[in-house]
Amino acid sequence: MPAELNAEQRKALEEEIKVLGDEIRKMKAEKAEPAVIKERVNKMLEKKKELGGTEEKPGKFVLKTGKGTRDYGPAQSALRNSVLQNVVETFNKYGAETIDTPVFELRDVLMGKYGEEGGKLVYDLQDQGGELLSLRYDLTVPFARYLAMNKITNITRYQIAKVYRRDQPVMTRGRYREFYQCDFDIAGQYDLMLPESECLGIVHELLTKLEIGEFFINLNHRLILEGMFAVSGISPKDFKSICSSVDKLDKTQWVEVEEEMIKEKFLTKEQTEKLGQLVRFRELNSGLSNLELLEKMSQLPELGQNEKFKKGAEELKVLIGYLDVDGVTSVRYEPSLARGLDYYTGAIYEAVAPKALEGTAVEKSEETAGQPVGVGSVAAGGRYDGLVNMFDAKLKVPCCGVSFGIERLFAIMEARQKNTVRTTQTEVYVASAQKNLVLERKKLLRTLRAAGIKSEMPLKANPKLLTQFQYAEERRIPLVVLIGERELQEGIVKLRNVVSREEKASFQTSEKSIIIFLSGRSPRFTRLLHSRRSRCTLDNQYVVLILFSNFLFFSSLSSFFSRSGHHNATVCFLILHIRCV
Amino acid sequence: MPAELNAEQRKALEEEIKVLGDEIRKMKAEKAEPAVIKERVNKMLEKKKELGGTEEKPGKFVLKTGKGTRDYGPAQSALRNSVLQNVVETFNKYGAETIDTPVFELRDVLMGKYGEEGGKLVYDLQDQGGELLSLRYDLTVPFARYLAMNKITNITRYQIAKVYRRDQPVMTRGRYREFYQCDFDIAGQYDLMLPESECLGIVHELLTKLEIGEFFINLNHRLILEGMFAVSGISPKDFKSICSSVDKLDKTQWVEVEEEMIKEKFLTKEQTEKLGQLVRFRELNSGLSNLELLEKMSQLPELGQNEKFKKGAEELKVLIGYLDVDGVTSVRYEPSLARGLDYYTGAIYEAVAPKALEGTAVEKSEETAGQPVGVGSVAAGGRYDGLVNMFDAKLKVPCCGVSFGIERLFAIMEARQKNTVRTTQTEVYVASAQKNLVLERKKLLRTLRAAGIKSEMPLKANPKLLTQFQYAEERRIPLVVLIGERELQEGIVKLRNVVSREEKASFQTSEKSIIIFLSGRSPRFTRLLHSRRSRCTLDNQYVVLILFSNFLFFSSLSSFFSRSGHHNATVCFLILHIRCV
Repeated sequence: MPAELNAEQRKALEEEIKVLGDEIRKMKAEKAEPAVIKERVNKMLEKKKELGGTEEKPGKFVLKTGKGTRDYGPAQSALRNSVLQNVVETFNKYGAETIDTPVFELRDVLMGKYGEEGGKLVYDLQDQGGELLSLRYDLTVPFARYLAMNKITNITRYQIAKVYRRDQPVMTRGRYREFYQCDFDIAGQYDLMLPESECLGIVHELLTKLEIGEFFINLNHRLILEGMFAVSGISPKDFKSICSSVDKLDKTQWVEVEEEMIKEKFLTKEQTEKLGQLVRFRELNSGLSNLELLEKMSQLPELGQNEKFKKGAEELKVLIGYLDVDGVTSVRYEPSLARGLDYYTGAIYEAVAPKALEGTAVEKSEETAGQPVGVGSVAAGGRYDGLVNMFDAKLKVPCCGVSFGIERLFAIMEARQKNTVRTTQTEVYVASAQKNLVLERKKLLRTLRAAGIKSEMPLKANPKLLTQFQYAEERRIPLVVLIGERELQEGIVKLRNVVSREEKASFQTSEKSIIIFLSGRSPRFTRLLHSRRSRCTLDNQYVVLILFSNFLFFSSLSSFFSRSGHHNATVCFLILHIRCV
Repeated sequence: MPAELNAEQRKALEEEIKVLGDEIRKMKAEKAEPAVIKERVNKMLEKKKELGGTEEKPGKFVLKTGKGTRDYGPAQSALRNSVLQNVVETFNKYGAETIDTPVFELRDVLMGKYGEEGGKLVYDLQDQGGELLSLRYDLTVPFARYLAMNKITNITRYQIAKVYRRDQPVMTRGRYREFYQCDFDIAGQYDLMLPESECLGIVHELLTKLEIGEFFINLNHRLILEGMFAVSGISPKDFKSICSSVDKLDKTQWVEVEEEMIKEKFLTKEQTEKLGQLVRFRELNSGLSNLELLEKMSQLPELGQNEKFKKGAEELKVLIGYLDVDGVTSVRYEPSLARGLDYYTGAIYEAVAPKALEGTAVEKSEETAGQPVGVGSVAAGGRYDGLVNMFDAKLKVPCCGVSFGIERLFAIMEARQKNTVRTTQTEVYVASAQKNLVLERKKLLRTLRAAGIKSEMPLKANPKLLTQFQYAEERRIPLVVLIGERELQEGIVKLRNVVSREEKASFQTSEKSIIIFLSGRSPRFTRLLHSRRSRCTLDNQYVVLILFSNFLFFSSLSSFFSRSGHHNATVCFLILHIRCV
């Protein structure tokens, strides 16, 4: 951006530009050497650039979105909405409610949790008089504030909303300043590990449903970490610092982690050796089941006697037992998982999908760019019994929850999708073969829409046939209903299967064969079914066409009718002739 | 809020409080007169209050949301989501795509449109280094910016998102600083009035679907207003100012509007009399249809010759013709509609629902509070061909659209609803009659969920039976599946209809009668249907229960099976016994 110019400087610059312009016009009129003209033009452009950002012409804007943010066009929005729909359905299946909180909070509310360090990344609103406000940084603090403010001690809620961080954006890695978070939490006094098993059930079910490839849910417990550290002779005051080293074991070799703990965190070799035997217990005992690992650790002389470890291990055993009954097979007890422990008080878990990007274009581009392939955590959570306390010391609200890395899931789904998601849901396109049929198209459209069928027509009075077909193909609308002069005279419509381009179905309508448009849910259809043997009193002498995306319904009905129709991946349609008495 | 105290003042105050505290404790110990103690306590509380806001105790926050904003709890969120679902379905039925833009824009982009005046209501973000940003004020400017930035000349999109205005909030009237907008727009070069007819079709269909009572869509055209003003001798420079008076005619008597135009806007009596005959044309010619009104106005000697009026009237005739075919019967040509004309260039329209709050609690409370009953506009829009030009002078993108007053619609739906919306979608609650059945409940829950049924169980190891029934009733979960020792021994489950409290259905399972849980969409069900006569190989010997919200499906299936089930407003369930070979 050019530096701000004062009025005088602007005027001088504008004068120079004007002089240059005159000069150029004169040279052009005199057919001067092109190279010479070009030099003058470049000079003028430079001057204009200096005037640049402060130039005030009407209709002159910097056309961009704010740093680290972006628009989502129809294709991206459709993909994201389809993922979110799966997410919400899963939450609903587990009995969750939803709440909504404002995009900004009082600054004091936010700062309470993040303190100075987190605060640096918070977007503040300008002080325009009144309260000091900041954009929310996550959904957990607003949730805790909501619980404390309303003295709610008991709720299972999800919230999907955007949060804001003034981080350094890395667009190529999907790190933005505005992004979705997607949280499910169970607040309330419940029995041991039952809420946790619900959270992990959701993670397992949703990741399975999204088909992101193989995934694991790593599981650990704060008390197990504390116990392991204690028997390794590590002081509780070093808990967080050593956790951050241990947690690197998913990506880093033990020797490097050990070196860091000795050189930077001043542990002794004796301490790290003891600790290493414990946090690497899964690695060193591969092939054992979760319960076998816990059992074997419990038999270690020192650790097995540690009260904290004993309590943590007992709790995890209960949880693992539940998950076994629930069919949550992706869980893996991992004593080196040590994340989020400034916050979590009990069980912690994190889902990883190491092969989610395998074979996708993203994988290839990252390989060539020398970046690590694959995605990290796609969901993480745990028990946090202390957060609501921060806002109301008297309110005891034990919580546990899980936050999905929904932006990562979007990215994975985008990379893995074979066909792009359709941006509209249109089922039928009403086209015409000749001119002056706009009213006839509108009539047909009205009938379709009245029957609940998603349908469109070209918003042109006399569109070209080819253009209409192209539109339907580009938008992947499964069916075109086509009318022309001849069809109108004969009282028929032509049906075009957009994928196969077949037009074989062209059905006659007469006083004795009524054809009506019906959707799977139309009450008219129900009536029709019930009156199949009685006189039909439908008001429209029209084509019949049952359109539905529900294959089950299709198959259960097909035996009712004499003629069945096409069937493709997204829409089945069945053409019916119903003869009336 | 107390004024900021310096350290010294704080210390003095804290000392006073301490002294008072000691005094009170002593008086209490000596069983002094309660009134005297109370006086001291009050004094201490006052001192504490002085210390108040600056007191820094951990866990001490102002527990509120920012001014003019609020949380939406589960009940409100559920209602809003159910309205939004209807809205989105309607948009999809008309072939719309959706886009998403960031919550903040570069300040320059926003200021371009609103100028200084609108700018006062814009929330600015603090300058934390980098760009100057502001929260979006509406969705139209981001849409135009998106089109110009991506050189899009053709899109039919909706966007539903929150916008921000630093207005004086009036919470009782539903005016907030953070609120939803809900816009549908058709951008592109199309034929006359076809896009407008789509917009009005959506308004008509959606308002009908939402059942908000009688509504009208008032319709006018910028050129008709310009024509009427011209033949009344009103200068084009007074256009906006006189429009704002004329537009009041929906709520104000003509005499008052006329007085305003004469006294404040300096029209002559001759001018207002001429104008009055025209803008009140519907009022003065009640009983005429839209086309008759336009026809009759066209026959007026002066107006009928005015080129602007002629063009506007011709365009509206085309539109009204289309709407007739489309079945949009709520449209009413209203020459006094004169809203948004700093912006609209062609047809304008606005939907009003005068009786939407009739008979509701809101109506009664407003009557007693002396406020005008009823809601104003619930949707408004028109043609605006110039907006995208503001961002890119070379890009010609004619647009027309409609914005729903979605917050008003939420309020109407809230006031009109007979039953509150359920906050969860749970269909089955798995309960147990005795202790130590948590694993059995979990097994049942797993089967239900695997079949796609939304289900919950109490997250307690040994919940009381009554508590479980109460929970299901409060949450309006339609069905409880109950197990106890006896049921387990006999291989049955008890089904409890939560509404009727009937428990009559208790089905035996045996090797020969398999009972399975199935949802309407379960692929297992399809398989089952196909294998009805062959050996059943289902892995679970379980209960049976088909749950679905789709009545049609229910009725089409009922003839397949020997026994049919209950049916209530929200969920039909059908209990099936399928005998295997």
